[in-house]
Amino acid sequence: MPVFEAHIPAGRYSDDVKIALADALNQSLVQGLGIPEGDRFIMLTEHGPNEIFMHPTFMGMQRSDAAMFVICYLGSHRPTEDKKSLVAAIERLVTEALGISGDDVFVVLVPVPNEGFSFGRGGLPLADVDPKW
Amino acid sequence: MPVFEAHIPAGRYSDDVKIALADALNQSLVQGLGIPEGDRFIMLTEHGPNEIFMHPTFMGMQRSDAAMFVICYLGSHRPTEDKKSLVAAIERLVTEALGISGDDVFVVLVPVPNEGFSFGRGGLPLADVDPKW
Amino acid sequence: MPVFEAHIPAGRYSDDVKIALADALNQSLVQGLGIPEGDRFIMLTEHGPNEIFMHPTFMGMQRSDAAMFVICYLGSHRPTEDKKSLVAAIERLVTEALGISGDDVFVVLVPVPNEGFSFGRGGLPLADVDPKW
Repeated sequence: MPVFEAHIPAGRYSDDVKIALADALNQSLVQGLGIPEGDRFIMLTEHGPNEIFMHPTFMGMQRSDAAMFVICYLGSHRPTEDKKSLVAAIERLVTEALGISGDDVFVVLVPVPNEGFSFGRGGLPLADVDPKW
Repeated sequence: MPVFEAHIPAGRYSDDVKIALADALNQSLVQGLGIPEGDRFIMLTEHGPNEIFMHPTFMGMQRSDAAMFVICYLGSHRPTEDKKSLVAAIERLVTEALGISGDDVFVVLVPVPNEGFSFGRGGLPLADVDPKW
Repeated sequence: MPVFEAHIPAGRYSDDVKIALADALNQSLVQGLGIPEGDRFIMLTEHGPNEIFMHPTFMGMQRSDAAMFVICYLGSHRPTEDKKSLVAAIERLVTEALGISGDDVFVVLVPVPNEGFSFGRGGLPLADVDPKW
């Protein structure tokens, strides 16, 4: 149940590339954390000119007009090692899918307890089980 | 001060239905948690084709092209029982308002300490009082 | 690495004013928390009619159709005093930049551990250092 929001420049990517981006984010869970492939829950939001602002070089990057944000609502039980693995997988797979630089992929991992995810029908199926995913 | 973001398919709902959706989310607080009706703070975001991705059956659901995300910034003092009550109310009221299946309502409850909500004028009125709402 | 999302009424602000809003949010970090000016990471999202709902008077405000949400992903190590300083700076600088009332600026501070921020290249540079920013 990690859920992704990708915030991308408007009009830059075709439908096929948007699907490839969703696949990349889904695969970052599979390859980075061993999460089942069916766990695929992603939103994309397009932002027009002067709606995405990133400093061009802060923290040693060389950012371009392809710069994007990835927000990930991640189970709060995840230790630092899992976060490192996930972020590395996101960067690798998203840069491949979009043909952009890793410098342009900014990620925020927002911790959410597993009991805070409802997959539908008004239930919280992970509230009373050991953390997974 | 729970604040909602609803992420919905673009062009699917009229203005009247959008207002009904906002009412439903507001009422989920009133009916699910006993929060005052005036506590009504909601954003809707439309997503075009290939901008919302949800696995069609993961965790036993039958999702359709009406599938939507509800993100709720919820006071971090809320116990599991409150979360169960709130999510059940969201599912019940949103499906009534939109005429969609409960399988299509994915919810994420993001914990935020009450001291992190400013209702305006640059203040944090809940920072120095017992948790409420 | 505080990251901002500003959710604003669609079509209301010119490109120049959007840039001024981004500058205001960036300066709220500089002036409110002593964060370096280069730490400028901001998204703006426009919402159409019936896509932003705020109660007109709840908690003693007089809100208008200029009402907006500011979501800030803030280091979870920040104490209440820092949050107060930041929210006051956001309100002061955003109202100056947009020419709106402080009653129209709703802020949510979402705590994110510093190890959850990747500035690019798939790294988590703040995972193994003392909290800063």
